[in-house]
Amino acid sequence: MNKKSFQFTIEPWSVAYENKEYQTPIFNLLQRKMILETEEEQNEGDFYVLQAPEWVNVMPVTPNREVVLVEQYRYGIEQPTLEIPGGVVDPGEHPDDTAARELLEETGYRSDRWSSLGKVSSNPAMMDNFTHLYLATECEYEQAQRPDEHERIHVHLMPLDSFLEYVAEGTIHHSIVVAAVAKYLLKER
Amino acid sequence: MNKKSFQFTIEPWSVAYENKEYQTPIFNLLQRKMILETEEEQNEGDFYVLQAPEWVNVMPVTPNREVVLVEQYRYGIEQPTLEIPGGVVDPGEHPDDTAARELLEETGYRSDRWSSLGKVSSNPAMMDNFTHLYLATECEYEQAQRPDEHERIHVHLMPLDSFLEYVAEGTIHHSIVVAAVAKYLLKER
Repeated sequence: MNKKSFQFTIEPWSVAYENKEYQTPIFNLLQRKMILETEEEQNEGDFYVLQAPEWVNVMPVTPNREVVLVEQYRYGIEQPTLEIPGGVVDPGEHPDDTAARELLEETGYRSDRWSSLGKVSSNPAMMDNFTHLYLATECEYEQAQRPDEHERIHVHLMPLDSFLEYVAEGTIHHSIVVAAVAKYLLKER
Repeated sequence: MNKKSFQFTIEPWSVAYENKEYQTPIFNLLQRKMILETEEEQNEGDFYVLQAPEWVNVMPVTPNREVVLVEQYRYGIEQPTLEIPGGVVDPGEHPDDTAARELLEETGYRSDRWSSLGKVSSNPAMMDNFTHLYLATECEYEQAQRPDEHERIHVHLMPLDSFLEYVAEGTIHHSIVVAAVAKYLLKER
């Protein structure tokens, strides 16, 4: 199916102005005044948007069909999570390179066999960025992890079927990780 | 597989204090000072978290195996999107009721056949909420939409196979919508 085959029909809003309300090391909080003007109506509203760099997520699989997973403590939900590795695209970096870098930094694994699983919008209602998804097969352990300053990561190898079961029953629950699984399952069908 | 069968081993951080930095109608921006204290190390850092109510997403399927989709303009990416319906759990509302309400409000469809697809963390690194996912089958058109003030929604019926193809090739790209597809595919296997 051709991507252009779906014809969007909704009227676009336009940005009247936007203001940076707050800045963090991870994202900026913008307030956007947006306007809808059509023949039928005029409307406007204030919307809040997080401006953030692109992200990547990698589904790494070993020659034994084990998935390389990262366990870490997540400050949003104040709980540990089990996820596939990922991170932030640095300025000037290509997402393909981010993916290889994050896999190596977070897990110590590398791969020569990469394929794209496409990209997903991180949250199109309130974030401006996309997350680029990858499948890396034939992953091999190369070196010790080199996590970022606040990253404490435990690496786990898990059979692919167990990984999918943990997604199905909710132990693995990060929406972007689960989205990567959808793209993987659809690719493998 | 039992959910308790995965043993998390990572050390938990604790919140030293948190401060509400900014408030919007959709979320609060918190700054959290977090501390890690183990036998091996002491560490602390400032982290930014969006405090938001729970969300729901519904995958609605008609007796003809068509998915009921909503096309709307999304202010984060400044583009139209194609998504399954969803929304915010109101104070005191059960997510099951939110799901039925949002389906009816956004599309005019209702269903008597609901099942849970579990829940996903919206973004555990920087959001504190979860999104509850549902499958609603045998959906029937009941009444005109009643969207919220700024919602302009075009409803589309799409064969399930086309829906999955649009997810696979990226026309449908909201990470939480794609996550719902993973849960659906794993349930149907």
